[in-house]
Amino acid sequence: MEQKILGIDIGGSYVKYGVFSLEGTLLKRSAERTPRELNGEDALKTIAAFAKSMVDPSEVAGVGIGVPAPVTDGKVGKIANLRWEALNVDETFKRFFGGNMPVVVENDASLAAFGEYTHGAFKEEPYVFITLGTGVGGGIVIGGELLRGAAGEIGHTTVVQEGEQCGCGKRGCLEAYAGTAAMKAFAKTLIDEGETTVLKDKRINARNILDAAKAGDAVALKVVERAADALAQAVANVSALLNPSSCIFGGGVAEAGEFLFEKINERLDRYLFFGNKKPILKKACLGNDAGITGAMEMVRHVQSDS
Amino acid sequence: MEQKILGIDIGGSYVKYGVFSLEGTLLKRSAERTPRELNGEDALKTIAAFAKSMVDPSEVAGVGIGVPAPVTDGKVGKIANLRWEALNVDETFKRFFGGNMPVVVENDASLAAFGEYTHGAFKEEPYVFITLGTGVGGGIVIGGELLRGAAGEIGHTTVVQEGEQCGCGKRGCLEAYAGTAAMKAFAKTLIDEGETTVLKDKRINARNILDAAKAGDAVALKVVERAADALAQAVANVSALLNPSSCIFGGGVAEAGEFLFEKINERLDRYLFFGNKKPILKKACLGNDAGITGAMEMVRHVQSDS
Repeated sequence: MEQKILGIDIGGSYVKYGVFSLEGTLLKRSAERTPRELNGEDALKTIAAFAKSMVDPSEVAGVGIGVPAPVTDGKVGKIANLRWEALNVDETFKRFFGGNMPVVVENDASLAAFGEYTHGAFKEEPYVFITLGTGVGGGIVIGGELLRGAAGEIGHTTVVQEGEQCGCGKRGCLEAYAGTAAMKAFAKTLIDEGETTVLKDKRINARNILDAAKAGDAVALKVVERAADALAQAVANVSALLNPSSCIFGGGVAEAGEFLFEKINERLDRYLFFGNKKPILKKACLGNDAGITGAMEMVRHVQSDS
Repeated sequence: MEQKILGIDIGGSYVKYGVFSLEGTLLKRSAERTPRELNGEDALKTIAAFAKSMVDPSEVAGVGIGVPAPVTDGKVGKIANLRWEALNVDETFKRFFGGNMPVVVENDASLAAFGEYTHGAFKEEPYVFITLGTGVGGGIVIGGELLRGAAGEIGHTTVVQEGEQCGCGKRGCLEAYAGTAAMKAFAKTLIDEGETTVLKDKRINARNILDAAKAGDAVALKVVERAADALAQAVANVSALLNPSSCIFGGGVAEAGEFLFEKINERLDRYLFFGNKKPILKKACLGNDAGITGAMEMVRHVQSDS
């Protein structure tokens, strides 16, 4: 009975599951809709039950879990996008899953960063990873170690004093300009103000905004350029602090790739300290597997330390 | 003939020299006015000559040099506050000093950070060090390693889009609000606008501004609170990225200590991400010796690696 590692990536829309060998090979993967209607405890019960249908807990040497919130010592507070109150994720999962294996819990974007760092194409350090989705997350690896806890939260660095309201409660965060929720809201505001745009007759989502911007639509361009400007400022601030040679972008919006990178690049000079080299913006490699891969590698990493 | 390590800290006003034992004990220190009228090569000639008067180059196992500019592989570009053009500091110093010892060159604030990290009272990691002087510098230590090159430059993170002009060439840097040069300029602007203040009859410098603010002078308070607000934003941004448990403040203005820290603390809540613990603001320990101590420790560190 060969031992396995289980990686679980709990997102706002989907929970992704991966069963890996101890050497890190992905043996089996699955994804289920996130049980958004449930509270944290019941959600983890459902997630543990599904995980048990994939792999026998007695075969599992360790579990890594990514959650869409800052994590401190396996605990999360209230999660805005889910009906979760403060919870010990590690203990709660273990109670439902059974077994006595170590359970490592970390922020989803930080685990995705660690997955991309360990299995992606780029290995430069300091390794700076930014996810562009509904929100803006991130993770940082230095000296082979993921900065754990509430670190790498580039989406919640302030780019505008007294700026737009962010979902986290404070104002002017990068996420309030460059997250897809913020981009959609800004597009709607511009449309409500009566500006002419092809978006008027379309579903307002990130893909349509980016496609319209590429085609030269003035409203869509305004939205993308405001996001790119905030991203340029935040990336330049990370450069001043850490001086990375590149920044790796994951998440749905990063799929827009070159077009978005060009827009950020155009604005980087305005914010970059003269001592820094312009970081090269690169698209991540692992797509939806980044989170489960990072969860698995964090289990291996923690086990090799102990 | 016991071997020594020479630490040199080249500042805008003074060059500080320390002769240390190989174990890191300070045996001799000195300070001379920075030869501001000279170009980089001639200045290093003068500095090397003074160093030779303190210690015989044949006794020196290694030299560490801090310069007030970002450093890449021993090289600096133009230094705004000095008449230095692009220069290989390591090779140029060695040519004048003689001998065949390793010469390590690094940014002055980064070396001060490393000095405080290795010899100061606080050892938490990530170690975040901020110097408050004419400019605002900094240094970061993670995993026992100083982030080298143009890193730790918290003074040149952008806090205000299209904000005040900074000496570095870009706009809205922390330094353009919290450096003493910026604070003095802002105080003068307020006086020129006719605001009533006790500063009108005093020399406008950082100490007088801070003293007047403590005594409740409205203009001085405006200056200090603008600086504290920018510092709070920048510290919160560092927290979101690195999640340090504390930030260590060095440099002349940090001597104002508690009063300034209280002002920053009052504003931190506005900018801090809810996942982060409020970092504790602490005053550094080594004062003027931080730079030479860090220069010496960097020599020891580089030698132990090779």
